[in-house]
Amino acid sequence: MNSANRGEEEDNFAALRQALRQFAEEREWDKFHSPKNLAIALSVEAAELLEHFQWVSETESAVIPPERREQVRYEMADVLLYLIRLADKLNIDLAAAAAEKIHLNADKYPIDKARGNAKKYTEL
Amino acid sequence: MNSANRGEEEDNFAALRQALRQFAEEREWDKFHSPKNLAIALSVEAAELLEHFQWVSETESAVIPPERREQVRYEMADVLLYLIRLADKLNIDLAAAAAEKIHLNADKYPIDKARGNAKKYTEL
Amino acid sequence: MNSANRGEEEDNFAALRQALRQFAEEREWDKFHSPKNLAIALSVEAAELLEHFQWVSETESAVIPPERREQVRYEMADVLLYLIRLADKLNIDLAAAAAEKIHLNADKYPIDKARGNAKKYTEL
Amino acid sequence: MNSANRGEEEDNFAALRQALRQFAEEREWDKFHSPKNLAIALSVEAAELLEHFQWVSETESAVIPPERREQVRYEMADVLLYLIRLADKLNIDLAAAAAEKIHLNADKYPIDKARGNAKKYTEL
Repeated sequence: MNSANRGEEEDNFAALRQALRQFAEEREWDKFHSPKNLAIALSVEAAELLEHFQWVSETESAVIPPERREQVRYEMADVLLYLIRLADKLNIDLAAAAAEKIHLNADKYPIDKARGNAKKYTEL
Repeated sequence: MNSANRGEEEDNFAALRQALRQFAEEREWDKFHSPKNLAIALSVEAAELLEHFQWVSETESAVIPPERREQVRYEMADVLLYLIRLADKLNIDLAAAAAEKIHLNADKYPIDKARGNAKKYTEL
Repeated sequence: MNSANRGEEEDNFAALRQALRQFAEEREWDKFHSPKNLAIALSVEAAELLEHFQWVSETESAVIPPERREQVRYEMADVLLYLIRLADKLNIDLAAAAAEKIHLNADKYPIDKARGNAKKYTEL
Repeated sequence: MNSANRGEEEDNFAALRQALRQFAEEREWDKFHSPKNLAIALSVEAAELLEHFQWVSETESAVIPPERREQVRYEMADVLLYLIRLADKLNIDLAAAAAEKIHLNADKYPIDKARGNAKKYTEL
């Protein structure tokens, strides 16, 4: 990313964060948006997303039936929106946290040890 | 967002998506990354995030104790990373889905009806 | 079940409910045990249980490695304990609710329509 | 509990376990009931239960509005039924596991240290 540009234009997260702030303000919903409640809502949405995959096989899960695709898409959107809202309330820079976490995971899961197996890093 | 620029530079999601693809390829983890498994992982991470708020009050949840802040930050990163990975596997444009969902929510929750209450749109 | 005996001896739920009440009282934990918090804790424990199955195949999930069996067993116990505690706080008779729900499900999923498929009753 | 009687009459769990076995057999649902899938279903139901408490305060959560009470009751039943079904598939004695876990918790949370605070045992 061109950091010179970053200040000038909104990135994905900033634009969504701003839209969510306005949405909540207009509806006077800030009083409901404690981090605790937002974390609950995030978890509930993640489960609603998971529900779409609960009785299908792993192979079947790769192809969403057309009539469910929009629902799945919106459940994923809901997860993202609550996550961005929670990050806003906690003053957390999501993009930076995610980039850092990838680096951290690279250390926890060295390629030669992690290759082809799904063990947790504590078991490698 | 300046759409003319969008083609030129990576947005947040694209950069993270690419990093996750490479991470999985290098470790031969694609075989584990069925949408079903990714949706499970997402849900598990959301619960790990929620765990940090489970016994605190809503008011207390607004301030994360310094010694927990990094953990909370990384749990949020994990949720985002699995969400981006799942979207990649399902060919879903997260940013577009989220922007659409905000518009949809604006229709479901008109300001004058939703103001100050947390009722579900089906009960408004 | 012999209902004549039910009054005399504790059933499983009653014994556990009583033990949990005493446990919370002795530790002055009632103030933390709002239904909201208990429902969060239940959900967190369910995810900790799910975590054990997240990267294994359905077939593999039928056999828990011996070194994980105790953990899985205790995660299931935690789910049950929070469920019983929540039921106690809400004055809900779990055993009766479960028996009723099975009857309800039998109506929602008639044998001839539900046989061999996992569709939701709304799609049958 | 009178152990002499236990062999003769079904306890709560045994009766529900048996009803669930028959339910699945009649519908040929055993093929869907891998422990992995059952753990997913359990987690999804726990989130559906949690959803009822997501925007209410802790105090409000103590009283379920009458029109929601039946739903909450059945969500709790669903959690229990999937838990019993999973325990059956894994040959786990739920009642024994729960009784053991209470004893374990009593050791992890000694009354004098745990009284009045909600810290995790690792932080006591």
